[in-house]
Amino acid sequence: MKIPVAILGATGMVGQRFVSLLAHHPWFEVVALAASERSEGKRYGETVHWLLPDPLPPKLAEMRILSPDPEQLAEAKLVFSALPAEEARQIEPHFARAGKVVCSNASAFRMEPDIPLLMPEVNPDHIALIEIQRKNRGWQGAILTNPNCTSSGLTVALKALDTAFGVQRAFVVSLQALSGAGYPGVASLDILDNLIPYIPGEESKVETEPRKMLGQLSQGKVVEAPLRLSAHTNRVPVLEGHTVCASVELEQPADVESAAAVLENYQAPSLARDLPSAPRPIILLRREPDRPQPRLDRMSGHGMTTVVGRLRPDPLFHLKFVVLSHNTLRGAAGGSIYNAELYARYVGWK
Amino acid sequence: MKIPVAILGATGMVGQRFVSLLAHHPWFEVVALAASERSEGKRYGETVHWLLPDPLPPKLAEMRILSPDPEQLAEAKLVFSALPAEEARQIEPHFARAGKVVCSNASAFRMEPDIPLLMPEVNPDHIALIEIQRKNRGWQGAILTNPNCTSSGLTVALKALDTAFGVQRAFVVSLQALSGAGYPGVASLDILDNLIPYIPGEESKVETEPRKMLGQLSQGKVVEAPLRLSAHTNRVPVLEGHTVCASVELEQPADVESAAAVLENYQAPSLARDLPSAPRPIILLRREPDRPQPRLDRMSGHGMTTVVGRLRPDPLFHLKFVVLSHNTLRGAAGGSIYNAELYARYVGWK
Amino acid sequence: MKIPVAILGATGMVGQRFVSLLAHHPWFEVVALAASERSEGKRYGETVHWLLPDPLPPKLAEMRILSPDPEQLAEAKLVFSALPAEEARQIEPHFARAGKVVCSNASAFRMEPDIPLLMPEVNPDHIALIEIQRKNRGWQGAILTNPNCTSSGLTVALKALDTAFGVQRAFVVSLQALSGAGYPGVASLDILDNLIPYIPGEESKVETEPRKMLGQLSQGKVVEAPLRLSAHTNRVPVLEGHTVCASVELEQPADVESAAAVLENYQAPSLARDLPSAPRPIILLRREPDRPQPRLDRMSGHGMTTVVGRLRPDPLFHLKFVVLSHNTLRGAAGGSIYNAELYARYVGWK
Amino acid sequence: MKIPVAILGATGMVGQRFVSLLAHHPWFEVVALAASERSEGKRYGETVHWLLPDPLPPKLAEMRILSPDPEQLAEAKLVFSALPAEEARQIEPHFARAGKVVCSNASAFRMEPDIPLLMPEVNPDHIALIEIQRKNRGWQGAILTNPNCTSSGLTVALKALDTAFGVQRAFVVSLQALSGAGYPGVASLDILDNLIPYIPGEESKVETEPRKMLGQLSQGKVVEAPLRLSAHTNRVPVLEGHTVCASVELEQPADVESAAAVLENYQAPSLARDLPSAPRPIILLRREPDRPQPRLDRMSGHGMTTVVGRLRPDPLFHLKFVVLSHNTLRGAAGGSIYNAELYARYVGWK
Repeated sequence: MKIPVAILGATGMVGQRFVSLLAHHPWFEVVALAASERSEGKRYGETVHWLLPDPLPPKLAEMRILSPDPEQLAEAKLVFSALPAEEARQIEPHFARAGKVVCSNASAFRMEPDIPLLMPEVNPDHIALIEIQRKNRGWQGAILTNPNCTSSGLTVALKALDTAFGVQRAFVVSLQALSGAGYPGVASLDILDNLIPYIPGEESKVETEPRKMLGQLSQGKVVEAPLRLSAHTNRVPVLEGHTVCASVELEQPADVESAAAVLENYQAPSLARDLPSAPRPIILLRREPDRPQPRLDRMSGHGMTTVVGRLRPDPLFHLKFVVLSHNTLRGAAGGSIYNAELYARYVGWK
Repeated sequence: MKIPVAILGATGMVGQRFVSLLAHHPWFEVVALAASERSEGKRYGETVHWLLPDPLPPKLAEMRILSPDPEQLAEAKLVFSALPAEEARQIEPHFARAGKVVCSNASAFRMEPDIPLLMPEVNPDHIALIEIQRKNRGWQGAILTNPNCTSSGLTVALKALDTAFGVQRAFVVSLQALSGAGYPGVASLDILDNLIPYIPGEESKVETEPRKMLGQLSQGKVVEAPLRLSAHTNRVPVLEGHTVCASVELEQPADVESAAAVLENYQAPSLARDLPSAPRPIILLRREPDRPQPRLDRMSGHGMTTVVGRLRPDPLFHLKFVVLSHNTLRGAAGGSIYNAELYARYVGWK
Repeated sequence: MKIPVAILGATGMVGQRFVSLLAHHPWFEVVALAASERSEGKRYGETVHWLLPDPLPPKLAEMRILSPDPEQLAEAKLVFSALPAEEARQIEPHFARAGKVVCSNASAFRMEPDIPLLMPEVNPDHIALIEIQRKNRGWQGAILTNPNCTSSGLTVALKALDTAFGVQRAFVVSLQALSGAGYPGVASLDILDNLIPYIPGEESKVETEPRKMLGQLSQGKVVEAPLRLSAHTNRVPVLEGHTVCASVELEQPADVESAAAVLENYQAPSLARDLPSAPRPIILLRREPDRPQPRLDRMSGHGMTTVVGRLRPDPLFHLKFVVLSHNTLRGAAGGSIYNAELYARYVGWK
Repeated sequence: MKIPVAILGATGMVGQRFVSLLAHHPWFEVVALAASERSEGKRYGETVHWLLPDPLPPKLAEMRILSPDPEQLAEAKLVFSALPAEEARQIEPHFARAGKVVCSNASAFRMEPDIPLLMPEVNPDHIALIEIQRKNRGWQGAILTNPNCTSSGLTVALKALDTAFGVQRAFVVSLQALSGAGYPGVASLDILDNLIPYIPGEESKVETEPRKMLGQLSQGKVVEAPLRLSAHTNRVPVLEGHTVCASVELEQPADVESAAAVLENYQAPSLARDLPSAPRPIILLRREPDRPQPRLDRMSGHGMTTVVGRLRPDPLFHLKFVVLSHNTLRGAAGGSIYNAELYARYVGWK
């Protein structure tokens, strides 16, 4: 018996990724799709501007779009949210109150103390925060969040290094794909033969979210990691895959080969290890001088693997490297689904 | 009377920029074009794969290509070199020995102690090194070099800040244009919907050249500046204009507004101030959140101005900002010509 | 004394081209800018998303945006319209009724029998239609239109051939630039590594507008040319410059060299010959096998020249060739201004 | 038992597609890889510049590159050729003489009267030409060719219409992907924000190859179809997938709905129907106004299906439509493999 799920914001870029990934998921079955008023009542296939190269799953194409209302989606036990931040802030709590577990890709609640910001291969134990959350808020359901698409791959690499050597400071500069801005998102006239060295709100997310995920859960609270970050974020004319150049300062200096070994051998905590969406491998270390590259490497591990390359000494800190992560798979829809799998395992549904 | 000049490597990307800029130069007149054996004897217009939007100057189109040999180019007093590094290492000294002043864009001699690495708006006094150079090498002519295209704009911004506050350390990540790789250079199959996080030899240039240019000339030697740099260099699908994200640590901390004033008011040393190619302004500070952008800003000051934007506090060091500079104008041919103008002024020709 | 003019729809792509071209026009002076309600009352420089590489003219940047209402723009004698078709249909007649001469880039009135569809280098005599128009409609002012951006260059080439040999049928396939869709226009996610073989409403314009322009004005009516066209229109990832592949059937067969001579020697009718925006030359014939190309050739003749290349025999009809024309200059704002100059000459203002 | 095969020209764009497609082929097993001298003796994985998103098959990565010599490749029964035309003209006959069946993607022999130019879904009966070929040339083996990448999809669409209505004349304009020019192929500086309206040698191939494939085999000769074509070919910044705009004149006029039915219901001749690479479906007819698009539709039917869209009346001929076909799959490596499967079935190996 599959677990019935619904998708909020099903017509956008990330919503489409949810639809595509959940159409054949071994544990979950999509029973409802919700989107904005404009689409309500229409068939999904007729209202979505489908942008993925894999075909729109015919069964889901036939579904009628519902409004994002817990009563309309009563059948679903889990709800995936691809809503914009402001709508998420309004709508997701209604679902949590109505007993649904919301796996949200939105930034609205990520930094709230009683809401887990989760990557199963990094901090699966933070899921226990939902007990506090339910107590605090009187919810039967819960909200689980996954990080910003740029924080995602970066945090996996930092986690591996932090566990082994301690990470004190990191400079990170992102070169981010167009799909991260949603659809229609970036106008072609703004980005062809160009780049934009600014993404609203992004730098502060990248400077804070990894600290929460690398923090320790202690007495019902996450104590943020002492790591300090400085981020520059840029939009570049690439369809999918966020690239991050990072320079890190370690507590215990490490040479390139020890760091390489740590990255390559990194394993998820056992709770998260054999979930259906677990990246295989968690980290792929490329040793060619010119990799990772987004078009060639973004689909590593079905788009869930964090790809690291160009590991070398840093003249100011200790190590420099490049991280690539698929922003709408590991960094968005795939991440939320992986979180939902962690929840299903945590509560014993699977 | 204009000064007769020749161009070595006239058919490549940078060579074309020399041709275009020198066709109407107020002080210089092109009397000869040289290129590789393959082109020798052909008319320039028939052998060059002209890539610039401004039309090929008809007079130069008619010139026959010569071989890069001082006897063939005897008429020229100044020689501009757009040769690849290895050829420059062989060929440029022949010209210097034969009494020519070589203004070279090649990396071959940039870091030699008696060869000036010059940006007139930064360190025009370093031109005095040619006296040492002539004594050391017994040359009648000389070699003057301009920095790597990525170092160029970055060094201008660092100079302004260094003069005012002292710069101790800097993290810099470049997003570099395709023209920097020459022609045919980067294959379209490698870069469409992609980026390449690696440019051979580039990072070490960016980590060392600014130190020499910001250094003090003392007793016939350049004492490198104590500034330390860490660079990541990336190729992105942009035609022209290198963008650099920088985070800097200052000796005397400065807030954003003081730094903005320093950048905006930066003036070239007086020797370099009224040369024909002097950027007007030297630095353009943009205050919009999303500028500079290469396609929109690369032609600022006829492609000679360094454009700085997104000046803001850095959480780890003191300041973060973005620098844009036109890589084949200020960062290559325009820079060599500006150096030649400095030389002409220095020796009293103009 | 310059003629006072206003611009409707001043903030869009074509509106920006009007602003840029009129800032230094020898005959016209911009006295007012109008745009949609959202921008009303704001300074132009603060509300426009300026996309051109040449800087926003400072004087116009300071102007306050007005509403597109003849009373507000009373000072202007000529009004340039970059409005969308539906708004143009509503708004332009108010101006014509109020005595203004509207030079419109919109498609709304192009095919109306008493509205001239004008290219001064093709059919300047059609301007006489405004007498009929004023009589029919009781207007003091008038509406003059310029053709669709794809029809523009194509019609110039067809006119030269038609005058010499008669053109009976033509197949035309366009590869159109992104700026033709306005701003934000085409989403980058829709066009990177892609093309779209469809542009709403475009094919019927290309199949009809040239027939009106090549028609004869006789007894107050344009008798359409017998030429028949079949068009396929495509959007490609190019910023500016529409390319058209054409195969034409002639009344009197002509070989490539005669046709080349006819194209190269084509002159505008005398009324239009020495206007400030007259293309110089009208047609540039390129004889290289691989030209014209949009990025290299779109600025020929300041973006007003029609560039023709690859002239060769056609196995089914008589001749094949490629036409390139700058879509927001000759094909839009530049074309409207050229029409306004024709009007100013026609009525004796200049 | 799988049939042992070799690949000539294994390191290029099309060679890589052969490697990728044959790594898991149900009938064929790659036993040898050959490439130019420069690569000889090296491991394939170390010398190839792998451009495909699917990983390089590890077993083939380990193979040593051989020289393209029948003795070195003696083990193979079938040889796939991705050689450039001139090399193919020299090398392929050695293999045919040595008893190998060469399935060639090169243009060298396509139009020779005794060499079949084959698409199994179009003219599988033409394979019988190899009997004549062997008699004429005294070969034990044979050469089979597949058409040019642009002719491929176009010919499938024309075949369906020709069978039903007769096709007399067609205008075709291609918008071709970068991969069609091989690697490194088109320089990024030539194609970003640009297109090139010229591909050397391409138009004559597109104007002749379909006539041979639609011809009748009669008394050991192919009588070319009376169809006449006019082609314009263009390179556009798209990675994979050639788009063709076509206008066709029919012998028996047909309306859009009858033509749509004919295209959708087109079946391969029975000999070719259940081969492993047979496209499923042969033709996919898209009814949206803006499809097919290369990035969204090129992988239809694993890149083997011909996608037709925008079927509508043509004002000069009878019908207009757009054809999309994956140029390195159906139009190159996939086509050669499909031909090899046809051969294996024809001679009873499978």
